[in-house]
Amino acid sequence: MEFVKGGVAAPHGFMAGGIHCGIRKNKDKKDLALIFSRYPAKAAAVYTTNLVQGAPLTVTKEHLKNGLAQAIICNSGNANTCNADGIEKAKEMAQLAGKALNLSPKDVVVASTGVIGRPLDLAPIASHMEELVHHLDHRDSKAAAEAIMTTDAQVKEIAVQFTVNGKTCTLGGIAKGSGMIHPNMATMLVFLTTDCAISRDMLQKALSQDVQETFNMTSVDGDTSTNDMVVILANGQAGNPEITREGHAFETFMKALNTVTVQLCRWIAGDGEGATKLLECRVKGAPDPAVAKTVAKSVICSSLTKAAMFGADANWGRILCAIGYSGAKVDVAKIEVRFSSAGGEILVCENGAGVDFSEELAKKILLEKEIDILIDLHDGEASSAAWGCDLTYDYVKINGDYRT
Amino acid sequence: MEFVKGGVAAPHGFMAGGIHCGIRKNKDKKDLALIFSRYPAKAAAVYTTNLVQGAPLTVTKEHLKNGLAQAIICNSGNANTCNADGIEKAKEMAQLAGKALNLSPKDVVVASTGVIGRPLDLAPIASHMEELVHHLDHRDSKAAAEAIMTTDAQVKEIAVQFTVNGKTCTLGGIAKGSGMIHPNMATMLVFLTTDCAISRDMLQKALSQDVQETFNMTSVDGDTSTNDMVVILANGQAGNPEITREGHAFETFMKALNTVTVQLCRWIAGDGEGATKLLECRVKGAPDPAVAKTVAKSVICSSLTKAAMFGADANWGRILCAIGYSGAKVDVAKIEVRFSSAGGEILVCENGAGVDFSEELAKKILLEKEIDILIDLHDGEASSAAWGCDLTYDYVKINGDYRT
Repeated sequence: MEFVKGGVAAPHGFMAGGIHCGIRKNKDKKDLALIFSRYPAKAAAVYTTNLVQGAPLTVTKEHLKNGLAQAIICNSGNANTCNADGIEKAKEMAQLAGKALNLSPKDVVVASTGVIGRPLDLAPIASHMEELVHHLDHRDSKAAAEAIMTTDAQVKEIAVQFTVNGKTCTLGGIAKGSGMIHPNMATMLVFLTTDCAISRDMLQKALSQDVQETFNMTSVDGDTSTNDMVVILANGQAGNPEITREGHAFETFMKALNTVTVQLCRWIAGDGEGATKLLECRVKGAPDPAVAKTVAKSVICSSLTKAAMFGADANWGRILCAIGYSGAKVDVAKIEVRFSSAGGEILVCENGAGVDFSEELAKKILLEKEIDILIDLHDGEASSAAWGCDLTYDYVKINGDYRT
Repeated sequence: MEFVKGGVAAPHGFMAGGIHCGIRKNKDKKDLALIFSRYPAKAAAVYTTNLVQGAPLTVTKEHLKNGLAQAIICNSGNANTCNADGIEKAKEMAQLAGKALNLSPKDVVVASTGVIGRPLDLAPIASHMEELVHHLDHRDSKAAAEAIMTTDAQVKEIAVQFTVNGKTCTLGGIAKGSGMIHPNMATMLVFLTTDCAISRDMLQKALSQDVQETFNMTSVDGDTSTNDMVVILANGQAGNPEITREGHAFETFMKALNTVTVQLCRWIAGDGEGATKLLECRVKGAPDPAVAKTVAKSVICSSLTKAAMFGADANWGRILCAIGYSGAKVDVAKIEVRFSSAGGEILVCENGAGVDFSEELAKKILLEKEIDILIDLHDGEASSAAWGCDLTYDYVKINGDYRT
């Protein structure tokens, strides 16, 4: 497997584009993205479990009932959520995109991200749809990745190539994250494309399995968004025999998918609102995967642990505390905790109690940009990882006045 | 019922004191508190559900097995948690207090709060125990309330008087809160005293019922502490016939207890680490109390809502979002949200969707120090309240470097 350029435009037959249409006031900020497959594609998706769901999710779920889609239209700057006319507007967005691409609106996935509860004005989208189609690029999806960003500081775009039955396949992805990131069964906005031939059922199975280990193990602030969705389109243009069951080819596909999604998770966490550090919590020695996941996620979500990491403070007691209230049944007396980074590795807790350690070395380790919190429960063979970020002044600043 | 001075020293037969003994480096900060009943007292308690529990909790649970206690010794500056010698040290603390007060160590409740995982040095406690006993005051518990504070900015001390069967009873309380506040079945450190005569069973029943509506509905940062406990001592010196069953006298007692605990909750939330505002979320129209509680607590715990309140930003979409991911089954289309404070009241969301409102009036309301978030689910008769605070730069500052 190797990394390639092009993001969601990298797989054969896919194009992507992004422009400023006027939903946002700032003209330097793109706010409308389009992804297009020139061939019919199988489509699979997972959605937020928040009971308050954006209107675009309702419309997208309806459109994906037949398991097919050929385009994704997404605006930033307005979530089109908690509005009386939301569903009507989301349907119109699909119609506008479908008309411009000569597709049925039913083959268009609709997504929106931004402020909740402010009516979405469709005029800027309608008047810029032709321009957006004109900007579709078959080699690069950077503009699309930019156009779906809200408070993200970095563009999140990736693609990998892998081989299935002798055919080179490509899988690409773009994501927006930053705030309101605490996915549950689904996630923030992530759009994936692949030219690998795979049946709808296996595509959904691959995606649903993968998100449990990736996006559902990522948290910026503990708030599960109303507009989360991950969508994958597979247009089969790589020419491989269609993957229709588990086996070697499916495993290869899963591995490629996981490579892309783990990288997107790391970027989303590391680019969390106000974040200065990416935190990865790796738990091993758990009696079962559920315990490993619960512990990893609890540590990543602890405000106190996150603030300590911001301050490069080796306050491991907060990690023990977060393990203790996680709800997982653990034997506290067996817990071991280490911090690791490019600056080195240090043991801070053994058998559930503190050990003497060099505060100087701990500081050196924690001053790095990517910190691993390594927990060994010494109580089995299961393991898990979760991704998060530190809690900083800037998180408060960004969210103290987001709307104005 | 009327408010009186004296805190936990207000009820007949109780004394309290607090001094600086040297666990903390800062000599201006008291770090050792003692509460003493000159008469045997019934004792009831609730404890944190965190699996990682401070050694003082283990020892206190053992000491309270017979339902009796006569003193509470508590230090700040060190939690005596996750230390190999923790239980031994906690037992010694009880012995030191017992010896100085001429009590069995089994009649002493032990509590500690502060940094986790640093061995507790008993020398300062041992050398200052006589001085502490000498400082016991039967009219005022301010020194004790100060000595249990960690990052708290305000002393939390309260007492009320009420009448049971013609006898005047007094109930007082002190608390420490500030950070790692997200109680579950128990809470931060709260010590309550009363001279009301009440059986051990009814005392425990009153306390256990009350915390479900008060401390368990309070959150500063979503982190459930390892050292939470609420202890109440009742020495019967008011002379009322002992309360041994439900009925009018028990209800009067519950009301007095609730008056004290709600005030302590409000102080703990409003004095949360870095907080500039007290948030009270009141939910009504719920199909059952569990839904009302789940919704209220979810809103109070949302980092995004808390940051918006810091910025006086009427971003009600974040409140809908927090209701949606709370796990409670609600009908989103019926939800109504209002903000209220000394600055006025404003409707911002009706039938699950935004309404036109004056941003100017909303700002005026949200710039106040105490904000009520009023939610009507329009789906039943049950209600609940929860207390929290805003998320501020200072929370990050305090917790970015707590140990040093």
